Amino acid sequence: MRPPRLALVPGEPAGVGPELCVRLAQQPRAHSLIAFADALVLRDAAARLGLALDLVEADDPASDRPGTLGLVAIDAPRPVQPGRLDVANAASVIDALHEAARGCLEGRFDGLVTGPVHKAVINDAGIAYTGTTELLAAQAHCDVVMMLGHDALRVALVTTHLPLRAVPDAITADAIERTLRIVGSALRRDFGVARARIAVLGLNPHAGEDGHMGREEIDVIAPVMARLCGEGFDLAGPLPADTAFLPAKLEGFDAVVAMYHDQGLPVLKYSGFERAVNITLGLPYPRVAVDHGTALDLAGTGRADPSSLFAAAALCAKLAAHRLASTA
Amino acid sequence: MRPPRLALVPGEPAGVGPELCVRLAQQPRAHSLIAFADALVLRDAAARLGLALDLVEADDPASDRPGTLGLVAIDAPRPVQPGRLDVANAASVIDALHEAARGCLEGRFDGLVTGPVHKAVINDAGIAYTGTTELLAAQAHCDVVMMLGHDALRVALVTTHLPLRAVPDAITADAIERTLRIVGSALRRDFGVARARIAVLGLNPHAGEDGHMGREEIDVIAPVMARLCGEGFDLAGPLPADTAFLPAKLEGFDAVVAMYHDQGLPVLKYSGFERAVNITLGLPYPRVAVDHGTALDLAGTGRADPSSLFAAAALCAKLAAHRLASTA
Repeated sequence: MRPPRLALVPGEPAGVGPELCVRLAQQPRAHSLIAFADALVLRDAAARLGLALDLVEADDPASDRPGTLGLVAIDAPRPVQPGRLDVANAASVIDALHEAARGCLEGRFDGLVTGPVHKAVINDAGIAYTGTTELLAAQAHCDVVMMLGHDALRVALVTTHLPLRAVPDAITADAIERTLRIVGSALRRDFGVARARIAVLGLNPHAGEDGHMGREEIDVIAPVMARLCGEGFDLAGPLPADTAFLPAKLEGFDAVVAMYHDQGLPVLKYSGFERAVNITLGLPYPRVAVDHGTALDLAGTGRADPSSLFAAAALCAKLAAHRLASTA
Repeated sequence: MRPPRLALVPGEPAGVGPELCVRLAQQPRAHSLIAFADALVLRDAAARLGLALDLVEADDPASDRPGTLGLVAIDAPRPVQPGRLDVANAASVIDALHEAARGCLEGRFDGLVTGPVHKAVINDAGIAYTGTTELLAAQAHCDVVMMLGHDALRVALVTTHLPLRAVPDAITADAIERTLRIVGSALRRDFGVARARIAVLGLNPHAGEDGHMGREEIDVIAPVMARLCGEGFDLAGPLPADTAFLPAKLEGFDAVVAMYHDQGLPVLKYSGFERAVNITLGLPYPRVAVDHGTALDLAGTGRADPSSLFAAAALCAKLAAHRLASTA
C-alpha cells in the first residue's frame, strides 16, 4: 500500500492556521502533506517561528519529509498580516477548500485536513458560507454528519448550527435515521469498528422521563432506533444526556449521537482539552478539521497550541490508510 | 459558635438512601445529623452493612458522634424491601421532606441534606410532585435556583425540568435576572465569595454568533446582563457553551449560569464523577442533595457509592456554619 497523500488547507491566512501548518510540517510522518495556500504566507510563518520550510511541487515525493510541504499555490491577493482580517483575502480561503476537496473527490488526494476558517470575514466578503462541513457536503452532493472526537470519546450530532428554538422540529425520524446510518457505516468503513455500539441521547432533560418532560423520545427517537436495531444496529437509548457521558456508562460504546450542538459538545471539548478534532462523516474521502477557531489574538505569536491540528492530521492519515488498505 | 444541626432525609426507603445515611453516620464530624426516617429501615440497613447505628432523640447532643444519628420518626406504613418500590410508602417520603424543611424554616435545624427520591412512585401514589427543589420552594414561598457543583465547578440553571421545546420561551429577562440575583447573593452569603464572577452562557450554539444563529442573546440575555453589571455584578457572556467549560476559560469564575438542563449538566456531572451535589439556592436555609437517583438495582447490596451524600453533608455543614458565624 502506498502512503496516504493528504490535502492540507490552513484556513484563514491571518489566523493561527499557517503557523500551525508550519509546525505540522516539521513532524516525522508516513504520509505526504500538500498545502493549498499562499507560499508567502507559509514562508512568513516559518520565518517568524524560526523553522525550516521547503515548499515542493504537489507531486514531489519529498512532501512526506519533515520540514517539507507539497504546495498547490492559492494566492491571497492582499498581503497578510497576522491577526488582521482582510475581506479581500476571503475568497482565496474558499478557493483553497474547493480545490483541495476537488482533488480528494478526483482521487488525487486521500484525505483532507483543514485549519480554522473565519466565517464572518467570508460572509462580509459577500460569500454565502455557513461552515466548511456544509461547503464540502454541497460540493460532493452528500449527506454528511459532523462528529467531534478525541482518543476517548466521539460525539456525532443530528443537528448542528441551528438556533435552539429550531432544534425540536429538526429532530425528525429522517434526520435521526440518516445520522445513525452515516455514523454506523463510517465507524465500520473508516474506523474499522465491525459493529458499532452507539449511545443515542434523548432530546429532552432526563430523556423525557417517560413522556413527562416531552414526547419526542417516545414519538420520534425510539421508533427509529427500534427499526434500525431490527436491521442489526447496536443502539442504546434514548439516554439522559446529563449522565450518559459518565465513564461507567460510556464503557463499550464507540460513539454518542447527540440531538444538538450544546448537548454534546461541551463535555466532548471539556474532556478532550486541545486534542479534539472535527470529523466529517459521509463524504467520499476522510476529512478532519481542527476543533478551534482562528485565534486572531495569538496569530503571529507562535504561542498557539498545535495539538488539535496534529491530532487532525494523524487521524486523517489513519482513516485514509484504512481506506487505501481496504481498496488495495 | 455552636456546631450546625443538619436535618437528613434519606429519601426513597427502598432505594440506596437509607444505607448511604448509615454510612454517613459513621463519619467523624463537627455537626449533628438528625434523620427524618423510619427507624426500622435505618436499623435494617445498618445490620445489612454490619455497621453500628445508635438512634437517639432529635435533641440529644450525641447526634454528632460517629455511629449515631438523631431521629425524628417518620414511619413507612408498609415493610420496606430494598429495591422494591411500594406506593403505600410514598407519602412518608414527602412527609419527611416537609417535616425536615419545617424544622429548618423554624430554626430548629441549620440545613437540610436529602438523599434520592423516586419521582414516579410518588406520582403513582397520587401525590403531585415534580421534584424536591420545587417542593421546598413552594413550602418556603421562595424563588429558588438549582445549582449543581463539586470542588472545581458550579453550574446554576435558569430553567430546569422543561421539555426542550419550552426552553426558549422560558428564557425571559425576568427569569435570567432572578437567577443571577439569587446566585450572586447565595455565593456571597453562603459561600463567602465577596463579589462573585459569573460566566453566563448563551441560549444558542456559539451564543448565537452575533445573531446569525438565534437572537435571544442580543434581545434578552445581554440587556439583562448589562443592567446588572451596571449595578455592580461581575458577569461575562453570553458565552458559547461548547468552549465555556474549558479550564483555561473557566479560571477565575465562581459559577457558570446555564440556560437549560442539558447545556450545563453533562459537563458538570462528567467533570465531577461521583462528587457532585445539588444545591438549592434562595431558600431561608442551606439545602444540599445528592446528585444521583435511587439506584434500586444497588439497594441492599452495600455497593452504592456514598461519595455524593458525604459531599452533600460536608457542604451543607459548611454553608450552615457560614450562616451561623455571620449571624452570631
